[in-house]
Formats: sequence, structure tokens, C-alpha cells
Amino acid sequence: MNNQVDLNADVGESYGAFRIGADEELLREVTSANIACGWHAGDPLVMAKTVDLALRTGTGIGAHPGFPDLLGFGRRNLQISSAEAKGYVLYQMGALEAFVRRTGETMQHVKLHGAMYNVVSKDPVLAAAVVEAVAEFDRDLILVGFSGSQFLRLAQEAGLRVAHEAFADRAYLPDGTLVPRTSPGALIKDAASAATRALRMVTERLVQASDGQDIQVRADTICIHGDNPEAVTFARAVRQALRKARVQILPLREFIR
Amino acid sequence: MNNQVDLNADVGESYGAFRIGADEELLREVTSANIACGWHAGDPLVMAKTVDLALRTGTGIGAHPGFPDLLGFGRRNLQISSAEAKGYVLYQMGALEAFVRRTGETMQHVKLHGAMYNVVSKDPVLAAAVVEAVAEFDRDLILVGFSGSQFLRLAQEAGLRVAHEAFADRAYLPDGTLVPRTSPGALIKDAASAATRALRMVTERLVQASDGQDIQVRADTICIHGDNPEAVTFARAVRQALRKARVQILPLREFIR
Amino acid sequence: MNNQVDLNADVGESYGAFRIGADEELLREVTSANIACGWHAGDPLVMAKTVDLALRTGTGIGAHPGFPDLLGFGRRNLQISSAEAKGYVLYQMGALEAFVRRTGETMQHVKLHGAMYNVVSKDPVLAAAVVEAVAEFDRDLILVGFSGSQFLRLAQEAGLRVAHEAFADRAYLPDGTLVPRTSPGALIKDAASAATRALRMVTERLVQASDGQDIQVRADTICIHGDNPEAVTFARAVRQALRKARVQILPLREFIR
Amino acid sequence: MNNQVDLNADVGESYGAFRIGADEELLREVTSANIACGWHAGDPLVMAKTVDLALRTGTGIGAHPGFPDLLGFGRRNLQISSAEAKGYVLYQMGALEAFVRRTGETMQHVKLHGAMYNVVSKDPVLAAAVVEAVAEFDRDLILVGFSGSQFLRLAQEAGLRVAHEAFADRAYLPDGTLVPRTSPGALIKDAASAATRALRMVTERLVQASDGQDIQVRADTICIHGDNPEAVTFARAVRQALRKARVQILPLREFIR
Repeated sequence: MNNQVDLNADVGESYGAFRIGADEELLREVTSANIACGWHAGDPLVMAKTVDLALRTGTGIGAHPGFPDLLGFGRRNLQISSAEAKGYVLYQMGALEAFVRRTGETMQHVKLHGAMYNVVSKDPVLAAAVVEAVAEFDRDLILVGFSGSQFLRLAQEAGLRVAHEAFADRAYLPDGTLVPRTSPGALIKDAASAATRALRMVTERLVQASDGQDIQVRADTICIHGDNPEAVTFARAVRQALRKARVQILPLREFIR
Repeated sequence: MNNQVDLNADVGESYGAFRIGADEELLREVTSANIACGWHAGDPLVMAKTVDLALRTGTGIGAHPGFPDLLGFGRRNLQISSAEAKGYVLYQMGALEAFVRRTGETMQHVKLHGAMYNVVSKDPVLAAAVVEAVAEFDRDLILVGFSGSQFLRLAQEAGLRVAHEAFADRAYLPDGTLVPRTSPGALIKDAASAATRALRMVTERLVQASDGQDIQVRADTICIHGDNPEAVTFARAVRQALRKARVQILPLREFIR
Repeated sequence: MNNQVDLNADVGESYGAFRIGADEELLREVTSANIACGWHAGDPLVMAKTVDLALRTGTGIGAHPGFPDLLGFGRRNLQISSAEAKGYVLYQMGALEAFVRRTGETMQHVKLHGAMYNVVSKDPVLAAAVVEAVAEFDRDLILVGFSGSQFLRLAQEAGLRVAHEAFADRAYLPDGTLVPRTSPGALIKDAASAATRALRMVTERLVQASDGQDIQVRADTICIHGDNPEAVTFARAVRQALRKARVQILPLREFIR
Repeated sequence: MNNQVDLNADVGESYGAFRIGADEELLREVTSANIACGWHAGDPLVMAKTVDLALRTGTGIGAHPGFPDLLGFGRRNLQISSAEAKGYVLYQMGALEAFVRRTGETMQHVKLHGAMYNVVSKDPVLAAAVVEAVAEFDRDLILVGFSGSQFLRLAQEAGLRVAHEAFADRAYLPDGTLVPRTSPGALIKDAASAATRALRMVTERLVQASDGQDIQVRADTICIHGDNPEAVTFARAVRQALRKARVQILPLREFIR
């Protein structure tokens, strides 16, 4: 069993006059921040501000690359080549890193956003391209991906450190993938249930799938969906359950080897 | 007098299916390449390819940040704040650097593009913001700017290395600024005249202004306009004139202190 | 004196997942809606939904073209040619009209957005280009512009109907222009004062300028700033003051000749 | 058999400083022009200029809506909802129509671009959404689509006029779909063969599929790929073959009922 876990959230998703998310509050609850890099969300001023906020709260900073689809918030699949996948991830990691470097700090991790996260979890060709991008950019970065995915296996084979991500507010299918958002029961809306699931994922490495059976899941980090208006409440419930069970909540850099 | 000079050109300005410039030929003629960073031109695949081309030809690699105005190719002034100027330059330097770093090489310089180049030459507040961006990003970068501009003075005061840029194919006003493109006689269209002017700028530090008087100009690097269909011819004429006079044509990194 | 006036507000400024404005409430308070056309804000789904909402509330529908600057929300000046001004306005009017036409209704007016509104109020060359765009697109459209501006004079000379717009929540300079937003006292933050000013503009055609003197102002329509969190409160105060004085609040199409 | 056919080409694909296509020459060869609407290519100045060129050559003008993917030139599939499909097509038709209307002329047709063309040929839900957009926008428009597709059947059922499009420079599979571009033999590179195929499609309604069998194909219009450097040569070969066989080459509006 784990007695350490990271909580991560997407932040820095505002764009110009368009404001999204309760970043200031959320950054006090999570230990790792996935900061949008200007493609599906975020802009240079937002990136600068969010990096500064994350440093102030001791939150680990990660690049959060997405598809070039601001209109779709990076949530719609776009058919890209492996060269495009590699280039898009390099570009966005570099852009964010400029804002981190100016503070004298370093980036902790990379986590893909939305549809790019999903497609790379399933497509080994795109997965390999993204692993290549990260390995060529900075071998010290931790790659966050869907728990148990081939993507993370490829990353480990390439010598990268990886963090398996689990979702406390999403139902799982018996095969370990998520129940699609469009299906009934896909979302765990009750913060207490989500907290209980989170705790069990961390301490027992198990989650009850949609058919009632327990399945194995590894949770180095648990995702807190920041676009949820209840995000802060939810994060607090998860933290409280974890702490009560004496699970340490730490940024990835402090326990991922 | 100088017996060393750099020739620079804008490259990597294609965008997706939109092709611009004779980069392969041009990169054989110049010693420093200003590579577009995806805002006014360029995209991740183009950036990767152009960095690779520049390395193959031994050309010094520079970031070429511009306004977020693909439609206007970064040539139209956009009223931005100093925080925006700083953020826009950081973002674009970071993005390009990712493509350089993956090759094991480093960036040599930064040169602003189009309307951003012009406005920063004149506006000390924006100039200071850009200097800050470069200094915080990488103090080893050489900042290329308009010869004699306050922008370069500010950069030097901040401890950055600078390169004064002169224009062999543009007419100068008596005050040392360029004759606006829209005025008659603004462009020196004859390659031989341009080559003669380039040589004199380098070896005598003088250029004949539009009123016939000689004025002083410092030319650490001479701009070869790549969007000109005659760019390659022009570059060759300048190179030939310089070599004949035994001026060394070298990347900035080899002689700027 | 007038006993009729229109209240207008900017709506439809959301973009994909980015939500802005209390459109549903605001559309119950105003009589004319300026709907963003996808350049500085808005997208096809938002445009469709906002047109439908406006029809349901009987609000006059207007196109609200802005600069191609989503990042700056159309509030930053961009140096454009008159051909660009004309083309940008035609494009955006056409795009919005498609959503209106599918309902069997027609567009009532056009009002430029942000920096484009400001620059066209002052620049006669750009003003003429915009007038040309509107005249060629649909001579029945009412052009809304800054009260007393040369822009509106040009529009009238071209045979277009115009509506003079006044600002109840902004201070005026003695020359009839607005106190810049960055100056102290630029904004009238108290809803009651704004309502009183609005009423006086309509019934007496006067407003007290920043030097204490009364100046003339014509108010066919009064702007309700929708990005203000107090927009709805403000709109209600203005409506109440006008109604109490028996001023009719009507869409432009019902009284502009 | 037909003795009338239209030739169509994609034009107006330049964007700002990015120039694509030999529009002036191409518009002298084809009878219908699909004009990009600013999303995958094209901009307001290009749209204005291309509409004017098409009018001068008597070419039928069509809107050519594509995905919001300038970087991918609209050639990459993007997962969109039917509401998005409808909105995207309405928006782009409206935008182009503004430029046509200012000349006193009307639009002749609509043809989707690239990946949107392909996905709508296969997906009946998106197809219905696009048909709805066209029917609500202008029932007089002719909808151009893949010959024999369900998309065109839906359009006809909705009372729209349709034009079946065939590809003289592409190999066909026995089921009547195209050999994917990535497969060997997908492209007919020889202009003479393409011309012969075009003629047979028009006069016999047959084309030899990749297995050697003849299959039926209806060709109201034949696509001339404008991004091909050989486009003009190819168009001329097709025209010559058709004329020799006394097939009339006419804009769609002159023979589609």
C-alpha cells in the first residue's frame, strides 16, 4: 500500500478577458498544478500569474499541453500525426518552462490535457511520440498518465519517471478504463463517496468497478477536476479522508522515483 | 573599423500548408537565422525542421517573437502593455528553445519581428519589458536590435550582449532611422548598391542618408529580407562584396562580447 | 426633447467553454443586443443561442464586429487599413446574419466593438470604409456610433439611418468625448447617479462634463456595459428612472428614421 | 448520358501574407469556384478579391466551409457535434455571402472542405445538420457532395438541389468510395488518363474501379484540385477531352434542377 499520494488539478485555464476556475483556492488544496500552455486555454499573462501562485503555495508545477483547439477547450479529438504530437508537446512544454525558469525554479511534471490525454492513452504511436518529446526536452520531468496505460509503460521503458493517475470522481469499467462521461453513472457527484474511493485507491490499490467487482488501480496522483464548481469542496473532502488515514499528501517530486 | 559581420535572415515562416520563403537556400548564405515562433508565422513542425536545417548549415539560431497576429504576419502594430510584451517574448523564446534543446544545442540570439521590432525600438517602456524577458530567460542570449536604439542601450545596461543591426537595402533618414517603406526611395532595389552600402557600413561605419550626408551606423549584423524573392541573389552580392574586402562573415556568437 | 430611447448591451461574448456575461437577465432589461461575431468573442453556438434569446425577449438584434483579437477581447488597437476595416465588418455582419436569417427575422443594427469602435469614431478613413461595408451589405441596418461623431455624419451622408449612443456610466470631457478609463473619475459607479444622468441625456439632451459645465449630447441609445457585474442592477435603475419620467424604452427600429 | 458538366476548384485559400494557389489562371478553366471562408483558409481581403475574380470570369460562386483548423488546412478530422456542424456551416456561408451580396450577385452553391467533406459523406447525423444549415440559410443554394452519398440523398429529401461530384484524378474502390490518399495508386497523376476518366464519367456514368471492374458514378461536377501545381494543365486536359466529345462545360446553376 501507498501512504503517499499527490493531488493534481488543471489550473491557469483563463484566457485574456475570459476567466475560468478558482485557481487561488484550488492551489491551496492540491500538491501538483497542471498549467495550460496557451493552446486549449491559458495565455502568457495567465501562465506567469499561475506559475507565481503555484510557487507561493509550494505546488509542483507541470505543463499541460493540449490540442490547438481553444474553441473546443482541447476536449475534441483532432486527428494528428506523431510528428505533430511530438512538436505540439515540445512547443507547449518550452513555452511554460520559460515562465518557470524566470523564477529560478524547475518544472516538476507534464500531463496532457483532455482529448490529447485520452487519445495518447490508447494510441501507442502517438504515445511514443509524446514520450520522445518529454525525454528530449527534460529527462527529469515526471510524466503523469492514465493509471496502467501503455503510455506510461513506454515512458518507463524510455527511462522516464511516471505517475499513475486515478480519478476519484469517475466510475470505472471492469477493464480499468473510465465509464464514458455520456453514460449514466459516469460521474461520482457525492464528495463523501469520492473521498472514500480516493482513500481506497491509495491505501488498498482497489476501486469498485461499474459491475460491482473490485479492480486494481494504482494512484500516485488523484485528479481534482478544476472546472467543477464543487472542485474546492471535493478537494477538501478527499484531503480530509486521506489525512485521517495518515496518508501523506505530497507533490510528485517528493516521492516518485 | 569592423572586419567581422554577421548576416541574418528571417526563416521558418511557413505555417501548416502555407509555404513561405526559400529557407534551404537562404540558410546557406546567412550566418544567423531568426526563426518564427508560431505567433505571426511558423508552427511546431516548421520550427523543428528549420532548427535542424540551421544546425546543418552552422547558422546561429535565434528566436523571432512577434505579435499574436498571424493574419497580419506580425506587421501591424498592436497596442500592448509591458506585461504583455514581456510575456509574449518569454512564451515564444521558450517555445523555440524546446526545439533547439532537443538537438543538444543552444540558442544564440533573439530578434523581435515586424511591428514588435519597430515599436520596441521607440518605446522605452516596452523595450525595458523585453530586456527583462530576455535577461530572466537566458543571460547568454545576444539581443539583436535596431542599430543605435535605446532598446540596445537598455539591454547593455542590464548586462546583456547586444548586436546592432543595419539594413543594406533600406534608405536612412539623417537622424539614423529608416525611410518609411511607404515613401519613395525607401528600398534599395539594386543588389550591387546594397552590397556597396553593406560594405561601407561594416568597414567605415557610415551610410549615406537620404539627404546625401554620411551618417554613422554600427553594423554587427546586416539584415537580409527573406520574403524578398531576390533574397538569395541579394545575400550573395553582399557576401561577395564583404569577402572581397576581407571582412569575415561569422555568426554573432563568434565575435559579439 | 426625446421621449423615446433605446438601451443597448453587448451580449453573446462567451466562447466555447469560456463563459462571460449574464445574457439571459440582461436581455430582459435592454431593447437592443450587440451580438459578438466570433472575432473578439462569441462562437457559432453562442451566436445561435444568443439570437434565439434576443428574439424571445423582443430585443433588436445587432452585429457587433471587433478586431481579430480574441486574446485582447477586441480592446487593443490594431493598425488596420481601410480595406481591412471594410472586409472585417462585412465578414462579421454576414456571419451573424446567417443565424438571424435562419429564424426568419432580420438584423436591426450594427455597432462596432471596443477598440474598433473607438478608432472609427476618430479616423475618417476607417469610418468611411465601415460606412461602405454597411451600405453595401444592407441599407436598412441602423448604424450605432458615438454620439456626435464624424462617423455618424458620414453614415447619414451615405443615406444610412444612425443612432447616437451616449454613456450614462462614463464621465464626459468638455469637448464631448469620454474621460479615458484610466483617468480618475472616468466611471460613474453609483447606479442612481448614472440613472439620473441617463434621464437628463434623454429628456434635456445635456450632461454635466468633468469641468462642471453642461454640454449637449444626443442619446438615441444608452449603453449598458454587460461585462460589469452590476450590469443588471444598473440597467434596472436606468429603466426605472426613465419610466418614471414617462420616457418610452424601445428598440431602435421602432423610432429611428 | 449527360452532355453537361461543371468543373469545380477550391480557390481563395491564401491567408494574409501566405499565398496559395494560381487562382487567376484556375478561375479561367473551371465553371464553379469553392471559396474558402476564413476558417481553414481565406481571409476577408482574399474573399473579396476572389469573389470579384470569379464574377469577372463568370464562374459560379460557392461557399467552402471547413473545420476551424487553419494549422491543419481543414484536412484533419475534428470530432464535432451536430450543433457545431450546423453552426460552423451557417457562420461560414454567411461570411462569404456578405462579399457576394455587396456585388449584387448571389451564391450558387456550397461545398464542404477537406475533412469536413469526408466525415459528412459518411456520418448521417452530421450530414443532416449540414443539410439543415443550408436549407435554413438559402433554399436556392446547390449542395455539392460526394457522388452517390447519403448526404446528398438527405439534401434532396429536404428539397435542396444537389450536385454529384466525381474525382477524375482519384482511383475508386469497387464500393464507389475513393482509394485512400495514403494507398499506392490513389492518385491518377497523368493528365491524359484523368481526362479520359472524366469524359467517361460524364458520358457513360462509369469509372473503372481499382479491381478493374466498371462501377457507376454520377458526375454533375468534376473536382479540379487547386493545390496541385499541375492544376491548370490538368484542368485544360479535362476541358479539351470534354469539348471534343461535345460535352458542355457550364456552371451548376445552368443545368442543376
